[in-house]
Amino acid sequence: MQLYVIFLGTGGSWPTVKRNVTSIAIKRGGEIILMDCGEGTQRQIQRSGLSYMQIKSIFISHFHGDHFLGLPGLIQTMQLNDREEPLRIYGPRGTREIVEELKNLGHFKPSYEIEGIDLDEGDEVRFDGYSVKPFRVKHNVPTLGFVLEEDQRPGRFNKSKALELGIPEGPLFGKLQRGESVRLKDGRIITPDMVLGPPRPGRKIVYSGDTRPCDKVIEYAKDADILIHDSTFLSDLEDLAREYAHSTARQAAEIASKANVDKLILTHISPRYVDDKEFEREAREIFDNSLVARDFMKIEVRLKK
Amino acid sequence: MQLYVIFLGTGGSWPTVKRNVTSIAIKRGGEIILMDCGEGTQRQIQRSGLSYMQIKSIFISHFHGDHFLGLPGLIQTMQLNDREEPLRIYGPRGTREIVEELKNLGHFKPSYEIEGIDLDEGDEVRFDGYSVKPFRVKHNVPTLGFVLEEDQRPGRFNKSKALELGIPEGPLFGKLQRGESVRLKDGRIITPDMVLGPPRPGRKIVYSGDTRPCDKVIEYAKDADILIHDSTFLSDLEDLAREYAHSTARQAAEIASKANVDKLILTHISPRYVDDKEFEREAREIFDNSLVARDFMKIEVRLKK
Repeated sequence: MQLYVIFLGTGGSWPTVKRNVTSIAIKRGGEIILMDCGEGTQRQIQRSGLSYMQIKSIFISHFHGDHFLGLPGLIQTMQLNDREEPLRIYGPRGTREIVEELKNLGHFKPSYEIEGIDLDEGDEVRFDGYSVKPFRVKHNVPTLGFVLEEDQRPGRFNKSKALELGIPEGPLFGKLQRGESVRLKDGRIITPDMVLGPPRPGRKIVYSGDTRPCDKVIEYAKDADILIHDSTFLSDLEDLAREYAHSTARQAAEIASKANVDKLILTHISPRYVDDKEFEREAREIFDNSLVARDFMKIEVRLKK
Repeated sequence: MQLYVIFLGTGGSWPTVKRNVTSIAIKRGGEIILMDCGEGTQRQIQRSGLSYMQIKSIFISHFHGDHFLGLPGLIQTMQLNDREEPLRIYGPRGTREIVEELKNLGHFKPSYEIEGIDLDEGDEVRFDGYSVKPFRVKHNVPTLGFVLEEDQRPGRFNKSKALELGIPEGPLFGKLQRGESVRLKDGRIITPDMVLGPPRPGRKIVYSGDTRPCDKVIEYAKDADILIHDSTFLSDLEDLAREYAHSTARQAAEIASKANVDKLILTHISPRYVDDKEFEREAREIFDNSLVARDFMKIEVRLKK
């Protein structure tokens, strides 16, 4: 199944001509999980060619305007386009209450179920084939980071072992690969563990939310395929980053390195920066596979062989 | 003083790639009056090259999402950019209450004064050199249209009359033109009415808000320089227009014709239309000086000679 990360908004605090405020779509097969939903996200979704009708659930890292003010418009547009499936919006404590406000602004009355759900570290939200786990990060209001991780895949199929056991090549191979036991003509029952290697981890995408450098990110992002990390400032403004509880590109790279991730994506770039080249340069001094997020950037997360 | 209408969002219901939801900036000198503020308006302002710091006041026609959900983001961005001047947001009954909600969403606390003010037909909001008057239109929730009209200008200066009266050419002419009396060397006092024609009306811009065809628009838009009118549908969907309390391009043109305006601008185009050429064709059969609004269209309203 194909897994993509699509950046819908990559700027911090307020939108600029170049960057909208934060939103990240994670698309797995035909399902989209949205992480954060700043003002204008519904239009960014349209520009990206995605469909907002594929949005399964929304996770909000925290309730600063640039991370959630796109919710009421998106909720209303889904209704105008006949959404009937319930929409669950997850976030830190306070989410339930804020979602109640947002879903009743002005003359709007929801005709489908919209539920806000408070999460905390230790929780796990299960989906078909993957889950999302929140963890606490260090911002100036209650803020969560999120791990989206696929379920383990069955281990690698050992073809020569299977032939050795006398299993005929054909449909029985497929059954065993999918984790089912099979009965041979001679009456023997072969269980999958006899021909499969150890289970292989699913793909793992981690989003830090807005945060100062934080050990929890290292812990939860361990060996992730992609870490999407707050990188509001460059190092020369590290004092400002500390004051506003954000990270610099260098700090994000240090976290990525310690967490041993495959790829680091720098996001939440402050509107003060017109040129973002320096972000990659700074991060790559510490962690080579660093990339600065740009609106509509689409990254495929491939299965490891 | 230069007067412009800048269309920041010209679509109805939800944004498309081509049109954002409704917002209209009226710029007079260095001051902007915003009419409606759909989601994403702050970014449209940036794209238009206007400054949101010039926004004096905001008028909201009604509280359907596509007309006001850009308010919280704009309010917050103004604060992040150090606005100290009070912001007044005017609209139909319920405005005060909704603005109280909008200005306290999430963790935001306003540091400058933000006031919601309920208006009704018969009110007049005075500014320096112009005023805004609301009038009731026919939508499916309480909705106002707005007239922005400049104060009367002094009448035309009659130079030959002035010379006839023995007034010497020079600074005394200017004083009389500005409406001041002058004393001549022979002791006579000349009052402005002796050399000025009748006062001339200021420029007049009228916005219908969302509405079915409505006599109040004809009354309030009488002889306006520009009428900006709901034109959600084409005539073949007149039934739908009636059902949702909107107007067709043809109906808008009929109103413009009856109101004897100079120019009609069709706006709030439904997202169902990809091509908008037919809107102008349909309206021009009734009212020749019709134009369909497009995002970032800028129209100068010139003083009549």
